[in-house]
Order: sequence, then structure tokens, then C-alpha cells
Amino acid sequence: MTSKLGILAGGGDLPRRLVQVCRDSGRDVFVLAFEGQTDPATIAGVEHGWTHLGSTSAALRMLRAAAVSDVVMAGPMVRPSMRDLRLDPLSVKVLARAGSSALGDDGLLRAIVGMLEGEGFRVLGVDDVLGDVVAPLGAFGRYSPDAHAEQDIARGIAVARALGAHDVGQAVVVQQGLVLGVEAIEGTDRLIERCAELRRSGFGGVLVKVRKPRQEARADLPTIGVHTVERAAAAGLRGIAVQAGGALVIDRPAVASAADAAGLFVVGVQVDA
Amino acid sequence: MTSKLGILAGGGDLPRRLVQVCRDSGRDVFVLAFEGQTDPATIAGVEHGWTHLGSTSAALRMLRAAAVSDVVMAGPMVRPSMRDLRLDPLSVKVLARAGSSALGDDGLLRAIVGMLEGEGFRVLGVDDVLGDVVAPLGAFGRYSPDAHAEQDIARGIAVARALGAHDVGQAVVVQQGLVLGVEAIEGTDRLIERCAELRRSGFGGVLVKVRKPRQEARADLPTIGVHTVERAAAAGLRGIAVQAGGALVIDRPAVASAADAAGLFVVGVQVDA
Repeated sequence: MTSKLGILAGGGDLPRRLVQVCRDSGRDVFVLAFEGQTDPATIAGVEHGWTHLGSTSAALRMLRAAAVSDVVMAGPMVRPSMRDLRLDPLSVKVLARAGSSALGDDGLLRAIVGMLEGEGFRVLGVDDVLGDVVAPLGAFGRYSPDAHAEQDIARGIAVARALGAHDVGQAVVVQQGLVLGVEAIEGTDRLIERCAELRRSGFGGVLVKVRKPRQEARADLPTIGVHTVERAAAAGLRGIAVQAGGALVIDRPAVASAADAAGLFVVGVQVDA
Repeated sequence: MTSKLGILAGGGDLPRRLVQVCRDSGRDVFVLAFEGQTDPATIAGVEHGWTHLGSTSAALRMLRAAAVSDVVMAGPMVRPSMRDLRLDPLSVKVLARAGSSALGDDGLLRAIVGMLEGEGFRVLGVDDVLGDVVAPLGAFGRYSPDAHAEQDIARGIAVARALGAHDVGQAVVVQQGLVLGVEAIEGTDRLIERCAELRRSGFGGVLVKVRKPRQEARADLPTIGVHTVERAAAAGLRGIAVQAGGALVIDRPAVASAADAAGLFVVGVQVDA
């Protein structure tokens, strides 16, 4: 596991965190950055190359030139419209293989993983690199959900799974049994923001994030971090439930501290397959 | 069908439209208005009484005092938090009978319909009163969906049905196969607004509204009107698809004109049960 790692870097903090962990452990890193997607902070001081979605052949060339054989995909990619997408022939082939399932994020990601493996790369999950990033079962901090919150969590899981079966969204906010909001492509931050305006008085709601039933585990797992806790607190939520074994928690000790400070629970819950 | 009609009036224009249609046909009307829900314009110049959600016994008394035996529920009700809800004993009984299904809007509505019938009222659907309000099959105006739009409509129907099975939402916006947004309790107007910011370039998206699989047909059917068309146009959508036989279209000629003027399609589509 000490071979050079190629990071296909989407947005957010996660790719940068992977870079840091590799450096701390002395592992070489090459970041493949995507125009309009990757935070420039991710590539600061790291061997990297820029490409864009749809330049699959160029991306593979860069990975090979960097002598990378293990790759990991991390961070969300915003999907451009078909018109803005400049697809090279190999990208067209990947899309064609995905067929109608490419309409969902997960269908497309599975096709990309298949293509990378077909080209001889080993595709790792973020959790293969950051061993402790996968959500464990149980409360992360001092607080735990009460019976009311448990009910909201159960309803959130059911709704999120129903949506996920259609390869849409991973997050739901439920308050007092009422589904305040459901995530599509707007992202969890905007979902939380919207639900702050829709909330009822009384017991606050819970944010539930679970993976899609058939989700490719090496790509785009539901992720929370300190800023998720801070936004949830600001929106009057009582807590966050993520799928144990199926969601990523960036810097769990910091997440637990932030939750304790805000009086929120953050909990890993069992979700039956 | 010419007995006095009791209208349990939620928000929006629909209750007022029912009042108008009854007046035009010489039918007597009593409006039961709900504090914080009913638009005061609805009761202007009409026999009415004010009550609030949770005062079921008082509401029944008012309906009986008005000598009403046929009732219709029209317009959305915003559900207050459990804390703000002052429930009389009869309301508690209705809620208890609905059990855990009361968590969804439709479960609660079915319990209310059952209670009204148990009390001897005949519960009509809006379509029983406004015969021409139910969406027919096919294009309402000059424009029809093309093959791309048909694909988006099919995906929207699948996602909306999956959500509806959990008694959440009735509306979805899909663009180029991508689900831009899914409605929970924020309402269709806010969904459309949000999707305007999330839209991709190229072919615009479609709004799809279908009823929930087990929806009580006499309450809260998905509804569109001229303002839905105007908002959809402002948000860059290409059209609107509603379930033929399962959605209400307020003033279809005006909807068709607004759609023609904006270059949008509005179409009733078949949804298999």
C-alpha cells in the first residue's frame, strides 16, 4: 500500500486531506485536478496535472506519466450539461457503456471505475487510504438520539433509501416525523439551509445521510465533517445520523468536539442492505 | 349535487375557485376557514366560520349549524408542529386512528376523510365539484414534449412515485436526465425557484407532478395553475407534465394560453398504477 497514489480530485476538503495523510505516512502522491471542480488549495505544493471532465484519454496519460497504478476518487464532481461537456472518444465509450444508468451519478461513477480497472489501474476507496474515516456504529460525541429522534432517523433512512434506489440524493431532513427536505443535486449544505426556514417549533429535526443501495463504494460516499455539524447546529437541527460503514466522517475527533460544543448528537446507525 | 357545499379551505386559490363555481351554478356554500391557512380572500362575501386545525369538534359543529352534508377539502394545509397544535379530544382520536401513517400528509388526510364519513358527511373530491379540473391526457396547448423531454418526464415520474410511496412530495424537476430537485414540504414554487439556480446550460428541464401511489383522491391532489406555468418559464424549464386523471389544473384554457405565450409545453401523461 505504499505505491504512489493517484488522487482524482473533486471538490471540497477530502482530496486535500488524502494528500496530507499520504504525506504524513511518506507515500508519494499525484493529484489529477479537474477544471472547475478541484479546489486549487488541494494541489498546492503537490505533483499534479490539470484536466477536465471528458478528457479521459489525457487523464489516463497523465496518470501513467506520473507512474501511478493505484488511484482513488475523492470529493464531489459537479456534472456539467451535455453541451458544456467536451467528450473525447474514450469518454463517449465510457458513457455508452454506462447507458441509461449514466443518468444517475452512481451509474456514471461505476462506469468510470470499470474503465479505470480495464485500463489496468487499481481503484481504491477513500476508506482504504484513510482507515479511520468510515463512520462506526454509535454516538461519536457526548450526545445520543432520544426516542423521538430515533423515529425521525428511521423515517429519514426509509426515504433516503427509496430515493437512492433511483440514484438520487443521499440526504434527508426529518423533524417530528415530517420530511422537511430531500437532497437532489443542490448538496447537503443547501438542504440544511433550506430546512432551517421550513422548520417547525418544538423538537428540532435530524439530518440523515446514507449511501445509495447499489452505490459504488469506491466513489462519492456520503460525507460529513465539522462544517456539516456547524451548519446543522445553525439550522436548529438536533443531530446527524450517518450510515455506519457506509458514510465518511472527515476528522471524527473534531466532529465529536463540534457536536459536543453545539449540543448535537452525531451517530452512526445500522442500515439494512 | 345541488345541496349546500361545505368547503374545508386550505391555502391558495383553489378554495376561492370552488366558491365561485358554486355561486355561478346557484349552489349554496359554507366555507370552513382555518386560521393561518385560508386566504382571507376566500371567505369574502361568503357564509363562513373560522376555526383552527385541532378543533375538530368545533369544526363539525359549525358544519352542522350551517346545515351542510356534502363537504370538500381544497387547498394545502401547512402542518404546525405538535407543540403549536392544540388538539381537542376528537382530534386526538383521529390522529391515534391514523397511527404512524399520520406522519405523512396523506395518511393524516385519509384519517380525516374517514372521520368525516363516520360523522355522516359525504366527502366529495374537488373534481366532483369542478368537473373539468382534472388533467386530461395529452398536450394542453400548442407545444408538446420532444424525445429528450419525454426521457426527463419518465425519470421524473419514477422518482416522484418512489418518494410518493413514502408519502413525501409530489413534484420533481429533471433536466437532461439529472434530477435537479425533489419536493418535500417547501412546495412546488420554491422547488422551481431553487432549480432555476441549479440548472445546466442546454435543453431546459421539466417539472413533473404526480399523485402519490396510495393518495386519498379527495384531498390534496397535485395542482398546477397559470402561476405554475409562469414560474416554470421564469426558471428556464421547457415544460410541465402532470398525471392525467391524477392532478388538478386550475383554469386549463388560461394555463394553455400562458404556456403558448411562454413557449412551454404542459401535458397530461399516463402514469401506471
